[in-house]
Amino acid sequence: MNHYPQSVLNLIKELSRLPGIGQKTAERLAMHLLQSKVEDTNALAESITAMKQTVRLCSRCFSLSDGELCRLCRNPRRDERLLCVVEQPADMASLERSGAFNGLYHILGGVLSPMDGIGPEEIRIEPLVRRVRGGTVTEVVLATGTSVEGESTAAYIRERLSRFAVKVTRIASGVPIGGDLKYVDQVTLRRAMESRT
Amino acid sequence: MNHYPQSVLNLIKELSRLPGIGQKTAERLAMHLLQSKVEDTNALAESITAMKQTVRLCSRCFSLSDGELCRLCRNPRRDERLLCVVEQPADMASLERSGAFNGLYHILGGVLSPMDGIGPEEIRIEPLVRRVRGGTVTEVVLATGTSVEGESTAAYIRERLSRFAVKVTRIASGVPIGGDLKYVDQVTLRRAMESRT
Repeated sequence: MNHYPQSVLNLIKELSRLPGIGQKTAERLAMHLLQSKVEDTNALAESITAMKQTVRLCSRCFSLSDGELCRLCRNPRRDERLLCVVEQPADMASLERSGAFNGLYHILGGVLSPMDGIGPEEIRIEPLVRRVRGGTVTEVVLATGTSVEGESTAAYIRERLSRFAVKVTRIASGVPIGGDLKYVDQVTLRRAMESRT
Repeated sequence: MNHYPQSVLNLIKELSRLPGIGQKTAERLAMHLLQSKVEDTNALAESITAMKQTVRLCSRCFSLSDGELCRLCRNPRRDERLLCVVEQPADMASLERSGAFNGLYHILGGVLSPMDGIGPEEIRIEPLVRRVRGGTVTEVVLATGTSVEGESTAAYIRERLSRFAVKVTRIASGVPIGGDLKYVDQVTLRRAMESRT
C-alpha cells in the first residue's frame, strides 16, 4: 500500500476502522472522497465533528437529543402513560419508523449480560424504576431483543416493576410478516405456535 | 427518521452519499461514530480534511502524490525505461500490490468514451505522448481495463505511439488464476483460448 501518499494511507486506515468497512472498501471510499468536491468532503468531516459536539442524551429517556429533552419527550402529543423500553437508540428509531407506538421511550443502553460483567447497575434500570414510580406511566412495553440477554433483561425488569400498579407487557414475537415459513428458524416457529392467537 | 437529532440526521445524510453506503449502513455507521471516543472521530474527520488539503497529482505520472513528484517517480530504483499506462490510481495500486512491475506509471484519469463525451483531450494522452517523445522510455505496457472502452483506449494509444521507436505491449487477458473454468464468462474464455501460449 506504500505507493499511496501518507495522507491517503491515513484516511484508508481510519475508514477501515469503521464496522463492516474492510481494507478494499476503505480504499474505494478514499478514492471516491479524493475525487469529490472539497465542499462535499468538508461537509462530511464537519458533520462528524458537529454530531459529536452537539448530541447528548435526553435526560428523561436517554435517547439521542440536541437539548435537555429529546424531540419525543418534548412532544405534547405523545402519550406519556405508555413507556416502551428498548436496548439502543437504533431500536427506538426502528419502532418509530413502524409508526406503531405513540408513547414515550426508555433506552436502557444495553442488556443484562453477567458474562460480560453487565449487571443492572450498568444499564439504565434504576432511572426506569424512578420513572415508573413517578406515577404517570400506566403501561410499560418491554421491547428488548429476543436474544437470551434481551429476554432475561425483560424478565428482570418485569420483576423489578412488579410492586408498582403498572401493566407490564412484552412485544410479541413470531413469524415475520412476509416471511416464508421454511426460512424461519425453529425457535421462532415454536414461539409462534405457542403464542398463537 | 425525524426522531434523531438534526446533527445525527445530517451525518446519516452525508454518509449515505458515499458509494455503496445505503440508508441503513449510514445509520449503523452514525451510531458507531456516536459511541466512539471523540479522539477517534476527530481522527477520522481530520484525515478526510488533511487528505483533501495535501494530496496532489504527480506532475510526471499523475498518480496521487504528496509533493511535486510521487514516491515512485522519486524512487531511483524504478526502471524508467518501462512505462505502464493505467486508467486510475487504484489500478496502479493493484499492480503495485502484485509486485510484478518495476517501471513507472502513467495514469490516464479515465478511458475514451465518445458516448460520454470523453475524447483524447479529456484524458492524459498528450502528456503520455510527450513522455514517450522524451526518449527514455523503451516499452509502454497498456494496462487499461478489458472493457470495450479500455480496449479502444489501448488501441488508440498504440496508434498514437506507432511513430516512436518504442515497444508497445498489452497486459495479457485470460482466465484468472485460481478461477474455476465454469465460472468464467464466455468472452474471457474465448480470449484465453485465442491467446493460448
